[in-house]
Amino acid sequence: MNIKPLGERVVAKVLESEERTKSGIVLPDTAKEKPQMGKVLAVGSGRTLENGQKIPLEVKAGDKVLFAKYAGTEVKLDGEEYMVLKENDILAIIPE
Amino acid sequence: MNIKPLGERVVAKVLESEERTKSGIVLPDTAKEKPQMGKVLAVGSGRTLENGQKIPLEVKAGDKVLFAKYAGTEVKLDGEEYMVLKENDILAIIPE
Amino acid sequence: MNIKPLGERVVAKVLESEERTKSGIVLPDTAKEKPQMGKVLAVGSGRTLENGQKIPLEVKAGDKVLFAKYAGTEVKLDGEEYMVLKENDILAIIPE
Amino acid sequence: MNIKPLGERVVAKVLESEERTKSGIVLPDTAKEKPQMGKVLAVGSGRTLENGQKIPLEVKAGDKVLFAKYAGTEVKLDGEEYMVLKENDILAIIPE
Amino acid sequence: MNIKPLGERVVAKVLESEERTKSGIVLPDTAKEKPQMGKVLAVGSGRTLENGQKIPLEVKAGDKVLFAKYAGTEVKLDGEEYMVLKENDILAIIPE
Amino acid sequence: MNIKPLGERVVAKVLESEERTKSGIVLPDTAKEKPQMGKVLAVGSGRTLENGQKIPLEVKAGDKVLFAKYAGTEVKLDGEEYMVLKENDILAIIPE
Amino acid sequence: MNIKPLGERVVAKVLESEERTKSGIVLPDTAKEKPQMGKVLAVGSGRTLENGQKIPLEVKAGDKVLFAKYAGTEVKLDGEEYMVLKENDILAIIPE
Repeated sequence: MNIKPLGERVVAKVLESEERTKSGIVLPDTAKEKPQMGKVLAVGSGRTLENGQKIPLEVKAGDKVLFAKYAGTEVKLDGEEYMVLKENDILAIIPE
Repeated sequence: MNIKPLGERVVAKVLESEERTKSGIVLPDTAKEKPQMGKVLAVGSGRTLENGQKIPLEVKAGDKVLFAKYAGTEVKLDGEEYMVLKENDILAIIPE
Repeated sequence: MNIKPLGERVVAKVLESEERTKSGIVLPDTAKEKPQMGKVLAVGSGRTLENGQKIPLEVKAGDKVLFAKYAGTEVKLDGEEYMVLKENDILAIIPE
Repeated sequence: MNIKPLGERVVAKVLESEERTKSGIVLPDTAKEKPQMGKVLAVGSGRTLENGQKIPLEVKAGDKVLFAKYAGTEVKLDGEEYMVLKENDILAIIPE
Repeated sequence: MNIKPLGERVVAKVLESEERTKSGIVLPDTAKEKPQMGKVLAVGSGRTLENGQKIPLEVKAGDKVLFAKYAGTEVKLDGEEYMVLKENDILAIIPE
Repeated sequence: MNIKPLGERVVAKVLESEERTKSGIVLPDTAKEKPQMGKVLAVGSGRTLENGQKIPLEVKAGDKVLFAKYAGTEVKLDGEEYMVLKENDILAIIPE
Repeated sequence: MNIKPLGERVVAKVLESEERTKSGIVLPDTAKEKPQMGKVLAVGSGRTLENGQKIPLEVKAGDKVLFAKYAGTEVKLDGEEYMVLKENDILAIIPE
């Protein structure tokens, strides 16, 4: 995949429900803010603080992550659905 | 449980009402902003200030906490309900 | 009482109207933003500034305080009603 | 009067219209944001900047001030009406 | 006139249309955000930055200024109409 | 023209469509946020940062600029229409 | 093309769908926040931080970029459609 996210953004591949079930996580359809699971494919250069310092992101390519459903922007590339997200929209990493 | 919250977030297990009653705390259904009780399972790496300093969270795994009902995101894992919350949504720790 | 408020939060016991009258303060029901009176029971560790400095709260346990009615979160513990408030929602201390 | 305002807040006694007229100021009822006049009775400890510095308030006890009508919170004490205001809601001092 | 504006506020006398015409400026009634003209009578002590530095205002007593119509608060004193404005609501100085 | 904009504001003369066409730029009427073209006549003293530093504006008198149609305030002076704009509402300079 | 964007803005030429398809990226019409693709033609001087430091932009002229459809302002020049965008509205660079 050939997308380089800017700054504090990441690009993630959305994981379908079969893949989620294997990891033992079920995301209820009735949750008020339904999260999605994805795999991080690329991360931006980091967040620039007001003192000029660049803070690298906490997530890295390969991480399986949870993010809020109404965050980010969908992009379709060669039939696959991707999300471009700010790191702040990522709730947690699911270590494997 | 295998979720690593990001930054200033924590993952908590929601405590059901029997468990709450044992601790002597009753959360009234009629309260305008009904709080929930939970047990912290994992905490993020902390909050990054604008000067680049990383502030560790005040809560730690094992803490029993109160949080506002409409805060955070629910996640279901192996039949258990979890909340991913920002520390700022946690009102207080209930020492045991 | 066993609640430890986080950061810049305090826990206060709401004072009923007989107790208020004794102190000579009447809070009119018709006021556009009706304040409540309470007694501070516990205070958080303070407010963290963006330079990392921790500022202790101005109120302390035992202070009688005024706060805006629509601020904070109610918690009921052993039949008593408590409020968890940010210090910024406290208008004034009523010295005795 | 026995109220100690917090931080950047002040407590003021609302001045009735006869008192205002004596000072030569008339506040028109038709003004889009009708100001009120008051006398400052007590001031808080000041405003804390993000660098930790404490800035004392510009107004002091005894000052006659103008403030926006929809600012602050009313409190009634021994039959007198008081306002608890943030200094930022005070428009001007009326020197005597 | 005896009003001392606070901080970054100024007090201005509203100039009526004859006075404006003399200066060659016409403010169209149909403009989407109709500005007003005034003469600055008094200025506050300045704006306090987050590093504690006090920045004096750019306008001074005597300046003829343009300001947005829906900014500020009207005050009537001895039959004259005044505006209390934040300097940030002043668009420009009209040098004479 | 005799207007001195404050701080980070500029005063610009709106350019009519014939003048725009000569420069080869057409601003479509159907664009969701229709920009306007103008010529900068005067610039303010600059923007004051929170550390007290004054940053001069990037545009200067004589620059032809594009700005968003719904930004700024119109002023009519001797039959000409002017705009008072914050530099942040200026999209780009059109070099000649 | 002769437009010099200000500060943290860039000017981009919108790429039509045939050009997008060649790069293998399809942007679904049904996406809740439909992104567009463009080629960066010019970049501003950078973002000024509150400490006075100037941060150059991450994108440069020639970069193929994705941006949110409802961001920026359209400008038509010699029959071509351009976008003036803040760098923060650019989601990602598509390396070729």
